[in-house]
Amino acid sequence: MSSSFGTLFRITTYGESHGGAVGVVIDGCPPRLALDLNQVQAQLDRRRPGQSKLTTPRDEPDRVEVLSGLQEGVTLGTPLALEVRNRDQRPGDYETLRRVPRPSHADYTYQQKYGIRAASGGGRASARETIGRVAGGAVAEQWLAAAHGVDIVAWVESVGTERGGPVDPALVTRAQVDATPVRCPDTEAAARMTTAIEAAKADQDSVGGVVTGVCRGLPAGWGEPVFDKLEATLARAMLSIPAVKGFEIGSGFAGTELHGSAHNDAFVSRGDVLGTATNNSGGVQGGISNGEPVLFRVAFKPPATIAKAQDTVDFAGDATTLAAPGRHDPCVVPRAVPIVEAMAALVLADAALRQAARGV
Amino acid sequence: MSSSFGTLFRITTYGESHGGAVGVVIDGCPPRLALDLNQVQAQLDRRRPGQSKLTTPRDEPDRVEVLSGLQEGVTLGTPLALEVRNRDQRPGDYETLRRVPRPSHADYTYQQKYGIRAASGGGRASARETIGRVAGGAVAEQWLAAAHGVDIVAWVESVGTERGGPVDPALVTRAQVDATPVRCPDTEAAARMTTAIEAAKADQDSVGGVVTGVCRGLPAGWGEPVFDKLEATLARAMLSIPAVKGFEIGSGFAGTELHGSAHNDAFVSRGDVLGTATNNSGGVQGGISNGEPVLFRVAFKPPATIAKAQDTVDFAGDATTLAAPGRHDPCVVPRAVPIVEAMAALVLADAALRQAARGV
Amino acid sequence: MSSSFGTLFRITTYGESHGGAVGVVIDGCPPRLALDLNQVQAQLDRRRPGQSKLTTPRDEPDRVEVLSGLQEGVTLGTPLALEVRNRDQRPGDYETLRRVPRPSHADYTYQQKYGIRAASGGGRASARETIGRVAGGAVAEQWLAAAHGVDIVAWVESVGTERGGPVDPALVTRAQVDATPVRCPDTEAAARMTTAIEAAKADQDSVGGVVTGVCRGLPAGWGEPVFDKLEATLARAMLSIPAVKGFEIGSGFAGTELHGSAHNDAFVSRGDVLGTATNNSGGVQGGISNGEPVLFRVAFKPPATIAKAQDTVDFAGDATTLAAPGRHDPCVVPRAVPIVEAMAALVLADAALRQAARGV
Amino acid sequence: MSSSFGTLFRITTYGESHGGAVGVVIDGCPPRLALDLNQVQAQLDRRRPGQSKLTTPRDEPDRVEVLSGLQEGVTLGTPLALEVRNRDQRPGDYETLRRVPRPSHADYTYQQKYGIRAASGGGRASARETIGRVAGGAVAEQWLAAAHGVDIVAWVESVGTERGGPVDPALVTRAQVDATPVRCPDTEAAARMTTAIEAAKADQDSVGGVVTGVCRGLPAGWGEPVFDKLEATLARAMLSIPAVKGFEIGSGFAGTELHGSAHNDAFVSRGDVLGTATNNSGGVQGGISNGEPVLFRVAFKPPATIAKAQDTVDFAGDATTLAAPGRHDPCVVPRAVPIVEAMAALVLADAALRQAARGV
Repeated sequence: MSSSFGTLFRITTYGESHGGAVGVVIDGCPPRLALDLNQVQAQLDRRRPGQSKLTTPRDEPDRVEVLSGLQEGVTLGTPLALEVRNRDQRPGDYETLRRVPRPSHADYTYQQKYGIRAASGGGRASARETIGRVAGGAVAEQWLAAAHGVDIVAWVESVGTERGGPVDPALVTRAQVDATPVRCPDTEAAARMTTAIEAAKADQDSVGGVVTGVCRGLPAGWGEPVFDKLEATLARAMLSIPAVKGFEIGSGFAGTELHGSAHNDAFVSRGDVLGTATNNSGGVQGGISNGEPVLFRVAFKPPATIAKAQDTVDFAGDATTLAAPGRHDPCVVPRAVPIVEAMAALVLADAALRQAARGV
Repeated sequence: MSSSFGTLFRITTYGESHGGAVGVVIDGCPPRLALDLNQVQAQLDRRRPGQSKLTTPRDEPDRVEVLSGLQEGVTLGTPLALEVRNRDQRPGDYETLRRVPRPSHADYTYQQKYGIRAASGGGRASARETIGRVAGGAVAEQWLAAAHGVDIVAWVESVGTERGGPVDPALVTRAQVDATPVRCPDTEAAARMTTAIEAAKADQDSVGGVVTGVCRGLPAGWGEPVFDKLEATLARAMLSIPAVKGFEIGSGFAGTELHGSAHNDAFVSRGDVLGTATNNSGGVQGGISNGEPVLFRVAFKPPATIAKAQDTVDFAGDATTLAAPGRHDPCVVPRAVPIVEAMAALVLADAALRQAARGV
Repeated sequence: MSSSFGTLFRITTYGESHGGAVGVVIDGCPPRLALDLNQVQAQLDRRRPGQSKLTTPRDEPDRVEVLSGLQEGVTLGTPLALEVRNRDQRPGDYETLRRVPRPSHADYTYQQKYGIRAASGGGRASARETIGRVAGGAVAEQWLAAAHGVDIVAWVESVGTERGGPVDPALVTRAQVDATPVRCPDTEAAARMTTAIEAAKADQDSVGGVVTGVCRGLPAGWGEPVFDKLEATLARAMLSIPAVKGFEIGSGFAGTELHGSAHNDAFVSRGDVLGTATNNSGGVQGGISNGEPVLFRVAFKPPATIAKAQDTVDFAGDATTLAAPGRHDPCVVPRAVPIVEAMAALVLADAALRQAARGV
Repeated sequence: MSSSFGTLFRITTYGESHGGAVGVVIDGCPPRLALDLNQVQAQLDRRRPGQSKLTTPRDEPDRVEVLSGLQEGVTLGTPLALEVRNRDQRPGDYETLRRVPRPSHADYTYQQKYGIRAASGGGRASARETIGRVAGGAVAEQWLAAAHGVDIVAWVESVGTERGGPVDPALVTRAQVDATPVRCPDTEAAARMTTAIEAAKADQDSVGGVVTGVCRGLPAGWGEPVFDKLEATLARAMLSIPAVKGFEIGSGFAGTELHGSAHNDAFVSRGDVLGTATNNSGGVQGGISNGEPVLFRVAFKPPATIAKAQDTVDFAGDATTLAAPGRHDPCVVPRAVPIVEAMAALVLADAALRQAARGV
């Protein structure tokens, strides 16, 4: 079950870097959706390495093919299978890693869990695993837009200690986000972030960052109480992305410092429905959307695989120094933006269908 | 499905404050576990209101009864049903709330979701919902201790802006945590936190805080890659607790500011297995436990229900001022400690069984 | 997970004969349903032992109590917990069975599976387990009736070699079924069946039978292709009932003898929709309801627990003769009728909600 | 969810006849299994059309490709993706069917369910859907053989009214089954069945049949009580196969005519464990395997698509006569044998892993 996500809008992903393909089966996508494959490909292109000097130079064209569930561009309601064939597999690059587990990578834990591991590239812990998510999420967001007018935008809020200025979550667009390769809509901050990534790269090191996301246009009522609260499902979705170490909805950790009288979002009238004057809740109350934008933040650690020499031990426990071979991403957050959007779309599409089943 | 949690060690909870009982069905608890009901009751006692002057004065004795699955104190492997009868239901307290949705509470979203809502106490958004979690988690942690030597301790790290000093996660005990009603093992900080809570209470206001947790003794190999990563499941578990707005594993948001060379946890030899010299990973790599303590932080917002007057609108959209009637918790974090422990235990018990099924 | 059933309309049952209670948590019942508890109790009364001379003389009043999810008789959309307290537990009756596993009962398999078993009454293999199903199904059928005009009727088609005459599935009513204690609407056959049961009883033996069911009024479109076909889910539901050994939808095994030209159900016009001239399909095509009545048959073996002496071996493998102590049901099919109805209702309610989520 | 099957050993299938491929993702296959792809291909070859004059003349080579989860022939524990590219798609063959729904086929129900349907070949109701099942089941049975010494054999028991003689379930082999194209190990009966199929074919008609299966070598203890009983899961698995209308475990419907004293399987000593002298139970008691062979029967209706003219109505409700174009299977049971084996293997592999998780 660990490669499936969602109850009614459900994806199952497969593939690692060394096999023939990676892909996703989307089960439960509603029928009669006119699917724009160019939009799916566009999100995959935003995810792929080699798109700018800030990412790994590996060039993965990552062309998506739809194998089932579509007829003349329209969904049938049956499983959509989307596949991307692997190329540029260079197992030789990773020969050293057979002997030495990378610190803070999954080499050791996979070996302990399965008694075996992929000889190259990290297996399912490879960033390549996320292709299926992005493809699935791109379908989900098309349905959300068509059926509910929902849109989702994520952007880079910080890289290392460089932070962007305030972004208006009600107005920010993907075009603004993509204005710079670092995907921070604050162009001045983007320049500082670019410098920080280049410095880390020059130093054979890596750097972390924070991605912020907003989901707009969803009605009140999405999300299931108790264990499938909207924020709980979003948290699971985001923490399931490689390298993620933290998640906040609305005020997050900063909100813990406030008094209730300052933190509470007073209701205001918005025609037929109620809105809130502030949005410390991040668009959810009791696990259910309240109609305000859903706002969240996702923490990405610096990538574990670095060329800089590290003192560690090998699988046998003997001291060694590891300088990871190959070409690595000095910072994942620019490429993580479409992954975060994809996971948010998958959460919302599933929540929308579950609420539709309720018939309120 | 929203009231069930777990794949193999699975709980289903029910109940709200206005009905006859709250409870939990635990399906998948391994057979032949000698269950100490006093320990279950002890965790429920740590959760209940009225245990100190820092919490709501409502007195809920919350005696747990086991209705099935147990024979002469030993589990049969069949569903354990644990029930706590409701008392002290005072629907009259909540009469005002029929007309005015509490800001940042779930009154409005439940109404929008279901077209109906519990007339008193918040229904499933009531803190009383967590009784089933704590009972289920108390069973899970007994199995984890007996079968794997795992133990779990959570404590209050901050209340509002008052923070405790460093706590050694390898050594901290529940006795140290319970030394003060505020449940911060740093007794000096606990005094400051107590003052902060009392001040909020005196001001008819509320205050948030952070709970930290550690899980010790688990082997490498627990947690399922991709969507059921250990940290993803923990994040979902914690964000499903009422009032939680954030989650971090290991270095969390602070780790985003570091370079990989500083963040990576170098491996060290520990006899038959490997350990790590530092623990920025928080005990997980690639979603799988690495044998180090699992460390995480949980952000609790200030309780939404306050007696202090707030300007807001009623369900009809008309301006009003709400001073919530009834007795409220000025701060939930002391009582949240056993809830956090329970959710962590449920996550780990399920992960342990899923790994056992793999037969490595 | 083995005690839960359904995806969106989901029940979780608990309890065995020796504990404090049996019950069910119903998660996903739509909100705003005016629930008639008398109807729930009525189905439980049809299930309980001691209702006629044809069943075990144990008297189990089995009063149902609703513990959550209901407010002034209306569902809130949150989990409904229904509970029946145990009485008349006579563990002494079963002392012999500690040493000798009953042939064709679950004593041996539970012991092998769990390394422990309930000392009395068969644990979860007890017929008492079905109380939760009947209570849950009684709620499901009320929702099906209110929301979709669906009704479900089951009846006894045969007892041993005694068979009833043709029953019109379009017209048969529960009142007709309940006209005799044996629950066969063919009163002449009912008399023969009664004689057969009394003969088995007099001989300290037991006898099997077949229950037929029909679901009327459901629209075309319920049931999910491939693995959750409506007939697949019904089959699972029925085979999960204790003592069931077979299931047929529509023409069943008899249909295997026909040619396609004779078996195919020609379409006919029925106003806005199509119907079929015959119903060999049993109301489903490709796993999806076609708008015709859903017709199925369920085979119940003779109860395994009989007072008649049987040559067998004890748990140690030593030869012995077992004459099961206690009071046993000579035939379960009259009492199985409401259980079959309940499982069908649970299948349909879940299928209806899943189709509603699709938004066609 | 409807295209996924299994809890721990879980497959997700996709594809219809008109798209680019059909396939299966197998999630949860244990690591370190040396997978023989020839055996997988062999089961697919037994399933494919065109293998003998008894089946449709369509020639589908159906070469399987493994896209992930395998390294040097050994499973990694990560998802295995198996794919078969489509060829020989002749949508033109099915042009007539756009206007007229085939009686007893899924054309009408898919249209009602989804508001759209595949223009050719039945979409997911096509027999081609079963390729993913067979590929997944072939992996499952290799693991069952390697880890537990379990083997599974299915055979044709009847075609129309032609029945085979007794088969010893303890001894029958796939070689015996495959001795004739009709896959009945009774060669004399096989000849009669062949004649029956050829007669139906000559008459542009079709004929049904029964497939019997046996699973040997499994220990006592597999299967989960209550809703996931082994026989319940098998029933769901079998009824999910296209054209299946009935399922029996052990004595099935015939057993309903017996008295308990004749039906009960007396225990006998078999060294460390108990066996039974007879096997009316079909290898299960209370939903749990008892160590005896698991025996079951599956009813297949005659294929719905026939070239013989049928009076029916079109989608608009207007009377018409349909003689289905294209090449059709006059009888599915010979090709259904590997599908039945595959579904049984999937059920058992999942049950084995669930029991392993219990740690008894």
